[in-house]
Amino acid sequence: MKLLVVGSVAFDAIETPFGKTDKILGGAATYITLASSVLKIDSGIVSVVGGDFPQSDLDKLSDRGINIEGIEIVKEGKTFFWSGKYHNDLNSRDTLVTEVNVLENFDPKIPESMQDAEILMLGNLHPGVQLSVLEKMNKRPKLVILDTMNFWMDSAWDVLVRMIAKTDVITINDEEARQLSGEYSLVKAAKKIHKMGPQYVIIKKGEHGALLFHEGKVFAIPALPLEEVFDPTGAGDTFAGGFASYLAKKGLFDFDTMKSALIVGSAMASFTVEKFGTERLEEVTEQQMMERINEFRELTTFEVEV
Amino acid sequence: MKLLVVGSVAFDAIETPFGKTDKILGGAATYITLASSVLKIDSGIVSVVGGDFPQSDLDKLSDRGINIEGIEIVKEGKTFFWSGKYHNDLNSRDTLVTEVNVLENFDPKIPESMQDAEILMLGNLHPGVQLSVLEKMNKRPKLVILDTMNFWMDSAWDVLVRMIAKTDVITINDEEARQLSGEYSLVKAAKKIHKMGPQYVIIKKGEHGALLFHEGKVFAIPALPLEEVFDPTGAGDTFAGGFASYLAKKGLFDFDTMKSALIVGSAMASFTVEKFGTERLEEVTEQQMMERINEFRELTTFEVEV
Repeated sequence: MKLLVVGSVAFDAIETPFGKTDKILGGAATYITLASSVLKIDSGIVSVVGGDFPQSDLDKLSDRGINIEGIEIVKEGKTFFWSGKYHNDLNSRDTLVTEVNVLENFDPKIPESMQDAEILMLGNLHPGVQLSVLEKMNKRPKLVILDTMNFWMDSAWDVLVRMIAKTDVITINDEEARQLSGEYSLVKAAKKIHKMGPQYVIIKKGEHGALLFHEGKVFAIPALPLEEVFDPTGAGDTFAGGFASYLAKKGLFDFDTMKSALIVGSAMASFTVEKFGTERLEEVTEQQMMERINEFRELTTFEVEV
Repeated sequence: MKLLVVGSVAFDAIETPFGKTDKILGGAATYITLASSVLKIDSGIVSVVGGDFPQSDLDKLSDRGINIEGIEIVKEGKTFFWSGKYHNDLNSRDTLVTEVNVLENFDPKIPESMQDAEILMLGNLHPGVQLSVLEKMNKRPKLVILDTMNFWMDSAWDVLVRMIAKTDVITINDEEARQLSGEYSLVKAAKKIHKMGPQYVIIKKGEHGALLFHEGKVFAIPALPLEEVFDPTGAGDTFAGGFASYLAKKGLFDFDTMKSALIVGSAMASFTVEKFGTERLEEVTEQQMMERINEFRELTTFEVEV
C-alpha cells in the first residue's frame, strides 16, 4: 500500500549532554518517511520548505524512493526551524527557538501521484491544515492516522475535535491523552477518545513504551531499555513511521497487525535515538530491524505455569 | 520450598479519593505472605507487633497456613502505624502519620520451625535488622531477596551496602535504583547494582511495570492497565510476595523462572489495588490468578513478520 505523509520537513539544531549540532535535517515527515524507506514502502511527502532548504536534503529523500513532488518550495521563504536543549536525563528539554516560517501559511497540495495513497499519516500540524488535506483527497484513504499534541488542544480545540472525528488511529502521549479526555486513568481516557472517533488509540509513554487500545482490548509494549540515549529528537515520529509502514506493508488494519506495527515502530525508534537527528535511521538495514524486533521478543516473552 | 518473610506487620489508615479507612491490617510481611497463601506456599513471618494488635488479625494469617510463631508480641508496646492520603491521581501520596512504635527496637527472632526456609524475603526494614536476620539463620538460605528504599540510602548507607552484598535478588523502584547507582539510565544502574552483589535486579516502575536484569539480559513487563486504582497500598509488597512465592513453588532460580515470577507478582498486585488494604487480596482464588496471568499474556504477546 502507498503511504502519504503530511507533516513538517524542517531544520533542527539540537544540544544534548553529548554534544550539539548546527542546523540539520529534521521534521516529522522526514523521520516518518525515512522509517518507511527502511521497510521499502512506497511513500510520499506533502510539506513546504523555504528557499534555504538544500537540494542535497531533498535528494537524500528522493534517493531513498520517497516521492517529494508534494514538497512545495517557497523560494523567498525560510524553512521551519526548531532548536532545543535536552536536560541531563534526556527525558525533558527546553525549546530555545521555534521559527514557524513557511509553515505559517502552509496550504498543502497533494500531487496527482499520491492521490491513490491508501494510508494517510497526518503528522503534528494545525488540525485545520490536517482537515484540509482530507478534503483535498479525491477519495478518503482507507486508513487515516493522526498525530497531534497539547498545543492544539489549547489553541484549536473545536477544529481538533472535528479532525479527530475523521481519524481511524490517533497517536498521542499519556499527558495529552489525559488532557484530551479529562480522565487520569489511561484506560478511561482511551474509552473517551474512542467515542470521539478513532477506533484505535495509541498512547505513547516515551521510555515506558506504549499502549494500544481497540474495542475494549489493550496491548502494551515496553520501550527497549537502552544503555544510552544519545538524542531523542524524532523518536516519536520514527515510531509513527515504522507503525504506519508496517500496516502499509501488510495491507491489513486489524488488531493483531496493529500490535505488530507497534513493535516495528518501537524497534525503529530505538535506532533513531542512538545518534543525532536522522543519522542512525538513515543507516538502518532490514537485517538490523529484524534483530531489534527479536530483542523485543526476548524482552517480553514469558511462560507461566502455576 | 519454604519462604521466610521478615518485615512489618502493621496498622494502616488510608485515605483515597474513593473513601477512607480506620486502622486496618497492613505491613509488608502481611501482604507478602497473603500473596503466598494464594499460591499455597509454606510461609512464615518474623516480625513484631504491640499489645494492641488484635488476635483476630493474627488468626486471619494463621488460618491461611501462614506460620506466625515468629511474630513477637510486645504486650506493653504499640504496633507500627502508618497513615497516608493519596492524591487524586493515586500515583502520589502524603504520609500523615508514621509511628514506628515496637519496630523501633525490633530484634528479629527466627523460630526453629522456619530455620529451614530455602527462600528468605527481607521486607523493607533497617538494613542492620535485615543483616542480623541473615546472621541468625543456621545456614544461609538458597535465595535472599531484598526490598529496600531511599530512606536507608540516606540514613544507613554503609550497612545497606553490606546487606546488598549478601543479596541474590534486589527489588527497588526506578528512582531508588538511580540513587543507589548514581546512574540515570536504568540499564547502567542495573549494571552497577549487579556489581554491588545481586545477580538479579528488579526495578519497579509502578503503573509502568517492571524490569528484570540478569547477566546482561533484560525482561520487561508492563503493569496491567487498570480502569480504576482504588488503593495502591501494599501493591509493591504483594508484587514481591507473588514473585517470591512463584520461585518457592517452582524451586528454581534461573532467569526464565524469574521472568514468570515477575508476571505472577504483577498479576497478584493488580488485585490488591482493587479494594482497600488486604481486602481484595484475601479473596483471590487460584482460578482468578490464572485468568489475570492470561490477561498479561494477551497484553504482551505479538507476532511480527517483516
